[in-house]
This record gives sequence, C-alpha cells and structure tokens, in this order.
Amino acid sequence: MSGVAHYRLAQLAGRFGLELRGDGAQMITGVGTLATAAPGQLSFLANPHYRGQLGSSRASAIVLRTDDAAHCASACLIAPDPYVAFAKIAALFDPTPVATPGVHPSAVVATGARIGDGASIGPLCVIEDGAVIEAGAAIGPHCVVGKDCTVGAQSRLVARVTLVARVTLGKRVLVHPGAVIGADGFGLAFDRSASAHGGWIKVPQLGGVRIGNDCEIGANTTIDRGAIEDTVLEEDVRLDNQIQIAHNVHIGAHTAMAGCAAVAGSAKIGRYCLIGGGAGILGHLSVADRVTVTARALVTHSIHSAGEYSSGVPLQDSRQWRRNAARFKHLDDLVRRVQALEKESGSKESKS
Amino acid sequence: MSGVAHYRLAQLAGRFGLELRGDGAQMITGVGTLATAAPGQLSFLANPHYRGQLGSSRASAIVLRTDDAAHCASACLIAPDPYVAFAKIAALFDPTPVATPGVHPSAVVATGARIGDGASIGPLCVIEDGAVIEAGAAIGPHCVVGKDCTVGAQSRLVARVTLVARVTLGKRVLVHPGAVIGADGFGLAFDRSASAHGGWIKVPQLGGVRIGNDCEIGANTTIDRGAIEDTVLEEDVRLDNQIQIAHNVHIGAHTAMAGCAAVAGSAKIGRYCLIGGGAGILGHLSVADRVTVTARALVTHSIHSAGEYSSGVPLQDSRQWRRNAARFKHLDDLVRRVQALEKESGSKESKS
Amino acid sequence: MSGVAHYRLAQLAGRFGLELRGDGAQMITGVGTLATAAPGQLSFLANPHYRGQLGSSRASAIVLRTDDAAHCASACLIAPDPYVAFAKIAALFDPTPVATPGVHPSAVVATGARIGDGASIGPLCVIEDGAVIEAGAAIGPHCVVGKDCTVGAQSRLVARVTLVARVTLGKRVLVHPGAVIGADGFGLAFDRSASAHGGWIKVPQLGGVRIGNDCEIGANTTIDRGAIEDTVLEEDVRLDNQIQIAHNVHIGAHTAMAGCAAVAGSAKIGRYCLIGGGAGILGHLSVADRVTVTARALVTHSIHSAGEYSSGVPLQDSRQWRRNAARFKHLDDLVRRVQALEKESGSKESKS
Repeated sequence: MSGVAHYRLAQLAGRFGLELRGDGAQMITGVGTLATAAPGQLSFLANPHYRGQLGSSRASAIVLRTDDAAHCASACLIAPDPYVAFAKIAALFDPTPVATPGVHPSAVVATGARIGDGASIGPLCVIEDGAVIEAGAAIGPHCVVGKDCTVGAQSRLVARVTLVARVTLGKRVLVHPGAVIGADGFGLAFDRSASAHGGWIKVPQLGGVRIGNDCEIGANTTIDRGAIEDTVLEEDVRLDNQIQIAHNVHIGAHTAMAGCAAVAGSAKIGRYCLIGGGAGILGHLSVADRVTVTARALVTHSIHSAGEYSSGVPLQDSRQWRRNAARFKHLDDLVRRVQALEKESGSKESKS
Repeated sequence: MSGVAHYRLAQLAGRFGLELRGDGAQMITGVGTLATAAPGQLSFLANPHYRGQLGSSRASAIVLRTDDAAHCASACLIAPDPYVAFAKIAALFDPTPVATPGVHPSAVVATGARIGDGASIGPLCVIEDGAVIEAGAAIGPHCVVGKDCTVGAQSRLVARVTLVARVTLGKRVLVHPGAVIGADGFGLAFDRSASAHGGWIKVPQLGGVRIGNDCEIGANTTIDRGAIEDTVLEEDVRLDNQIQIAHNVHIGAHTAMAGCAAVAGSAKIGRYCLIGGGAGILGHLSVADRVTVTARALVTHSIHSAGEYSSGVPLQDSRQWRRNAARFKHLDDLVRRVQALEKESGSKESKS
Repeated sequence: MSGVAHYRLAQLAGRFGLELRGDGAQMITGVGTLATAAPGQLSFLANPHYRGQLGSSRASAIVLRTDDAAHCASACLIAPDPYVAFAKIAALFDPTPVATPGVHPSAVVATGARIGDGASIGPLCVIEDGAVIEAGAAIGPHCVVGKDCTVGAQSRLVARVTLVARVTLGKRVLVHPGAVIGADGFGLAFDRSASAHGGWIKVPQLGGVRIGNDCEIGANTTIDRGAIEDTVLEEDVRLDNQIQIAHNVHIGAHTAMAGCAAVAGSAKIGRYCLIGGGAGILGHLSVADRVTVTARALVTHSIHSAGEYSSGVPLQDSRQWRRNAARFKHLDDLVRRVQALEKESGSKESKS
C-alpha cells in the first residue's frame, strides 16, 4: 500500500474528533458514494433522501448523523455535519501532487519579480516585473503573473491563469485554469465628435483587483480590474466556472456564486449570499447580506433584505409554452379587461 | 494548381456515390454558397428556402435533391441528404494543415509521459507525468495535458487546451482553444464552526472526466471532473463554445449543445438531445432521449419524454414589455380576481 | 516625481481644448472619483446624480459642464462632454507599459511569418507560418497567432490570445486575455446513415474572421470563423468579456455588446447598436441600426426599426414569484376564461 493513502478508521475518528462505532482497526483506502463504494472505502450520508441506500452499501464505514447510525450495517463515524466531516476526510485521499518548489527552467521570470521561499513556478510561466509570489505559493504551467501583481502565501494557480495588472491575491487563494483576473473593465465613452456620426473612446482602467484570503475562482472566470478604484472580493468568496465580474464590483465575504453567473459594473453584493447558476446582477445595485438568488434570475433592482429571490417562467412543452408566451405580450391589456369586467360587475352589483 | 485541392466533378460523384448530371470533366477547386460561388466552385441546396437562387448561381456544380435537379442550370450531384454530402465534399477543400509528427523542441514533456506513434506535440506544450498521447493524436501549441490524462488516437487539441487531471479522451475527439477539461468541480460544504459565522470548506474532487469517441468540445468550454465518480460524455457528443458542464454530469451519445448552454452538477441528459444556445439544466435532473430544449430555456424539472421544451417570454418594445412585466408580478392575484368574477357570474347565472 | 506622470492643469486644458477656471499652475498627478480623489488628483462630474459631491470633493480639479462650474469649489475644466474629456485626460495617467519592440527569445516564430517594424512579440508566443504582424503591433505573452492570420498595425493582444486561422485584425484592435478568434464554427450535419441510429458529421469551416479598425474584444470572448464566407466585425465594435459570436455573424460599426451576450450563426446586427449584458440573438436574424437590447433579453425575431427592446420577467421574492410563475403555465387558458366572461357580460349587456 505504499504510495496510496491509507488510514485506520480509528485514526480518522481521532484526527477529526468523531465518535467511532464498529471496528476501528480496519483500513480505509479511499472514499466512495453509498451506491458505489467498494470495501475499504468510506462513504457518507448527509441528504436523508439517500437513507435507503444505507442497508445495501458495501462501504466499510459511513460518516453520518447520530440518528442514522442505528440503520447502518457497517462501521460508522458520527458527525454533527457529515458532509463537512466527509470533506475533511476525503482531502486525505486527494492525489493532487504537491508542487515542487523552485522555478522551472522554461519559465520566464523578470529580474524585478520576487519569488518567496518554497514557492513553485511551473513550466512556461511568465512572471513580469514587479510581481511578487509569496512563500509556498504554487504557480502551475502556462500562467502569466503580470506587472505588479501579488500572489499570496500558499495560493495556487492551477494552470494557464492570467493575472493582468495590479491584481493582489490573498493567502490560500485557489484559481482554476483559464481564469483572467485584472483585464480592463469595459469602460467606454461615446464621443459625438469622433467619426462621422460619433464613435467610442476607451476609458482607461486604472484600478486593480483585490481578492481576499481563501477565495476560489473557477475555470474561465473573468474578473475585471476597476476603472479608478479596485474591484474587490472579500475573504472566502467562492466563484464557480465562467463567471463574469465587471469592474468595481464588491463581493462580501463567504458569498458563493454558481457557474455562469454575471455581475455588472459597480454592483455591491453582501456577505453569505448564494447566487445561483447563470444568475445576473445589474450594475450599480446593492444586494444585502444572506440573499439567495435562484438559478438564472436577473436582479434588476437593489435587494435590501435577506431572503430568496427569483425571476423567469417555468419550462413547458413548446406548444403550450408558445400559446402562453404569446399571451404575455398582451398581459397589461388583459388586466385592463378584467378591471372593466370588475367595474361592470360592481355597477351591476350596486344596481341589483 | 499544385498545392490547391482540385477534383473533377466525376471523381467527386464516384468517391461519395452520388449521381452526376452534366459535365463530369470540369474541375472543382473549392466550395461556395449559391449566392456567392464563383465558377470552379461547388455549392449545395439543402434548405428549400434558397431554391430561388438555383437559377442565378454561378457555381459550376450544385449538390441537391433529385426534385430540385430540374431547376438547376449547372451540373449537379444528386444526394438524398445534400447537406451531408456537401459536408463530406467540402472536407476535401479544408486547408487546415496536417500536424507534423514528433515533439516540438520547445515542448516540456515529462519523462513519465507516453507519446504514441505519429503523434504530434506542438510548440510550448506541457505534457505531465503519466499522460498518454495515443498514436496519431495532434496536440497543438500551448496545450497542457495534466497528470494521468489520456488523449485517444487521432484526437486533436487545436491549441491552448488544458486537461487538468484524470481526463480520458476517446478517439478522434476534437477540442478547440481555451477549453478546460477536468478542473475541480464546484464542491463546497458550509462549516458552521469555521470563522465567526461559518465559512466554506472545499470538498475534494476525486473523480475524473471520460469523453467518448468522436466528441467535439468548443472554444472556452469547461467540463469539470467528478466529485467521487466521473463526469461522462458518451460518444459523438457535440458541444459548442462557452458551455459549462459541472461535475458528475452524464451526457448521452449524439447529443448536441449550442453555445453558452450550461448543465449543473449530476444532471443526466439522454441520447440524441438538442440543447439550444444558452439553455440551462439544473442539477440532479434527468432528461430523456431525443429531447429538444429551445434557446435560453431553463430546465427546472426532469423531462421524462421526448419532445420540445421551452421557457421565457417574447421580446417586445421595452415600453410595452415594461407594462406587461409589471403585471406579471400580480398574475396570481389576477387569476383570483377572474375566479371571483366567474363565481359571481355563475351565481348570477344560476339566479337568472 | 520622475517616472510618475504629472501635468500642470493649464497644460491639460490646452492639450484637450478645455476652458480652465482656477489655478492652472497646480500639478495634476493622477485621477480619482469625486468621493475619493486626493489633492493633486483630477476628477469629473458627468452624471448629475453625483452633483452633491462637488462641494466635498478633495480633488484639485474637476472636469464638468459649464452649468456645474458654479457649484465647484476647486479649479475646473469645462467640457461639453465631461466623461469623454476625462477619458482622454486619464489615458495620460495609464501606467500600462509600452511593449518593447522585437521578438522575445522564448517566442516560437515560424520562418514564414512576417513581423513589421517596431512590432513586439512577447515571451512564449507562437507565430505560425504565413502570419503577419504589422508595424507597431504588440503581441503579449502566451499568444498564438495561427496560420495566415494578420494583426494590423498598432493592434495589441494583451496576453494569451489565440487567433486560430484566417483571422484578420484591423489597425488599433485591442484583444484581452483568453479570447479565441477564428475557431471552427459549430457546423454539423446529421447523417442518418452513420452509426446505428445516425450520428453527426462535421461541416468544415472554410471561412475566416475579419475585424475592423479600433475594435476591442473582451477576455475569454469567442468569435468563430465562418463556414464558407467570413464572420465580420466592422470598425469600432466593442465586445466585453465572455461574449460568443457564432460563425458568419456580421456586426455593424460602433456597436457595443456587454458581458456574456451571445449571437447565433449568420445573424446580422446593425451599426450603433447597444446589446445588454447576457442578451442573446438567435441565428439568421437581422437587427436594424441603433437598436438597444436590454440585459438578458432574447431576440427571437428580426428587429426592423431603431428603439429599445426587452424580454424577461421581474425579480420577486421567491414565494410570490413561484405563485405567479405557476399561473404563467395557464395564461392562455386564463385569457379564454376572460373572453368567456366578456362574452357573457356582453350578452347580458345586450339583454339588459
């Protein structure tokens, strides 16, 4: 078993402070779902929906709540929040290799860049002048760390990440491939004197981007730098893939956004918000703390109190949908017709 | 004509088993649309909408259905499906150069990587330890093939593609620039004991991505690897640009998705589906075989039978739209008012 | 102050033809917003909404309209369009370094590529055979300029831009990181004879992309090349991040599109249009000149006259929204019920 992570169940219980029931001497060599775990693997039950799978699971041990332990045929670890406990245990079995400290000979590192102790600069990276890579940070292959950008200690750019200019990442920030942080915000002024009928001139984007500790930025996500002041993500903000954050947006700590969400310029989002996949937030709005926006909703006005918000219409068979959608174009008219009927009915009422 | 593809029309007829009408000796040197083809070029008529262009086209030959041949002034090739026949012929005129076998000297290839016969590794690629590039595969410039990833025989990564970890591509897979396959899925557990009011901890993403033969993955598309098990695309799945496929999604064979579509975690999509541009599919849903989802529709519940599905409301002049949209906020109230009128009308009815 | 841009206020007035009020001898060393500018900085007032900040701003000088000058405690520069004037002044303070002419030794430049006078090829670029980089163009790190692509004079690819094949950029074009221009359009023909129940075959994409002078292309935006003819952006088109432009789209001069907008194949968009964030335009449609499409609207039919167009429904508290959305599924039925009531009411009317 050399080279493969393995722990006795009792070791895991001790390490994460969990109550052990059953044989603590058995060896755990990996994790699996209740339905597919093989003997030797550890699984978990967090969603009561899957409780029925407890009996048939071949997992050697299961992390679960104390209430569910009675229904568990195998050994188990009792946790108040089994998903959190599972996440911590599973991390032990993550085969992602630790980056080798040092600068790969194929990387292009400017003489004015500063590389901290134990940092790793992968193959074919470009580290520009004035860039700072703090201690223990890992810059994967094909990253560009632009002029005057800072990557905080223990942060990791997985591969092919671009930090354009004036970007500061805190500690333990994780950035996935294809992310572009610190590109020009979309700032344009329409100049009536340009061209025959006017044309655009570019508004220089002089701000930067500041990203707090423990943030995660998904693959191909883009975060533009500010026009004058900075675009800001506070600590522990979690962004999925293909998210667009425009210039001067401010996102509060512990907010999470699912894939393809988009935030327009200068919007301010609170702390502990959950923004659903593909949701949009228009520019210059404020969103309070602890707001949930459901998938694909468009936030068209500021939200001043915690709660859940939605927009959109439900999916239907296209034939039915077409009929309903056509009626939407005359909804205001329909309301007026109902008002007329009500008025008439009322006058009849009063007449009768 | 050396260096430029050219074929006699009779050669094309023979090669693709099409009936020839007119002069088979003439030389075809390229393809064009009915409206713009020049003499020497071959065009096609698939959509009856363009039938009126048959008479005026300058194309030397036209691929069409037998019914349309009578209206064709030029030579023609008769095909049961002219678009399919045209696609096959046009491929002969594709100038995309064949990749030169061998490893470009600027590529960084780990000693533990395995490169098959006739494979091509382009400039500035990074091929990591344990990666396998099968025979005849072509890896264009600036690609990263991560640890333990496999690129199947005759596959092609056009340029700047990133395969992060535990990604397996089948044979003849085509991946366009900027695609990121195998990045971490978006797995988070909220840990109430972290920070003052709780914070996120990362759920390690231990699965991989398996992509079947003959799939095509568009530019800047992202496909995350699974949390525990794999994210799977069966054979001949076709994804356009900027599509987001979350962890543990399963897409059936021959399904095609247009640009900017997004599929949330653990959704299961059937075979032969057509997912429109910008459509979304929520997590943990099932979509049956041969389902069409129209552009921008959001699939919010499982779909159990083949058919076409939509959501959204129609485009209108903004002033009209604003009036209708405002009424939508009180639609439930409107229904109740209509119910009241109906009840009243019914009671009058029964009274009268 | 060596190394930092600085200008006397009178110099700025003279350079941009603006009327100066107040002390022209003072030195301006940067720009800021009204709320946060420090002494030595120049600010601007364009949006009357911020007029209240005039009194308290610490800016040394403010660019504003003549009407606002009376309320300005500091020096000011009078401009008919203060935002345009500010943009021009601010450009003087942009610290983006000018690219060093010449080819970085780590770049891979094909012998058949042509590099103009004063052009700059950054580290780890790949310039393929037949590519032309015109005079003064700057190609940042990690760019790929594919076969037979042309980058016009004074254009700038910031970093990690991919021009795949047959792409021509005009002069002064600016392309941000992660953009992919000239990838295959999404062309598929369904071949019933392939596989057991049919499968896709690829339609070769033989066209190119032509981008006019002064265009700007955002980070991770994708612009596919045409199937037979070219995809075209006329001059001064401005695209934000993560926009998807499908094959054979034509975009008129001076049109601007905000982040995450998407245009399907062969759509034709006019000049001076404003396309909101996340808006979509279906394939083969035409959009007239000077059309505004609001954020997230889906253009489902051609638009023949200038104006503003929208779709979607408003954001609500999810509980209220769910009730209304459920009613939408029966909107057609509701209209029929109202019609019945009207008919009945009318017959009563006529009876009474």
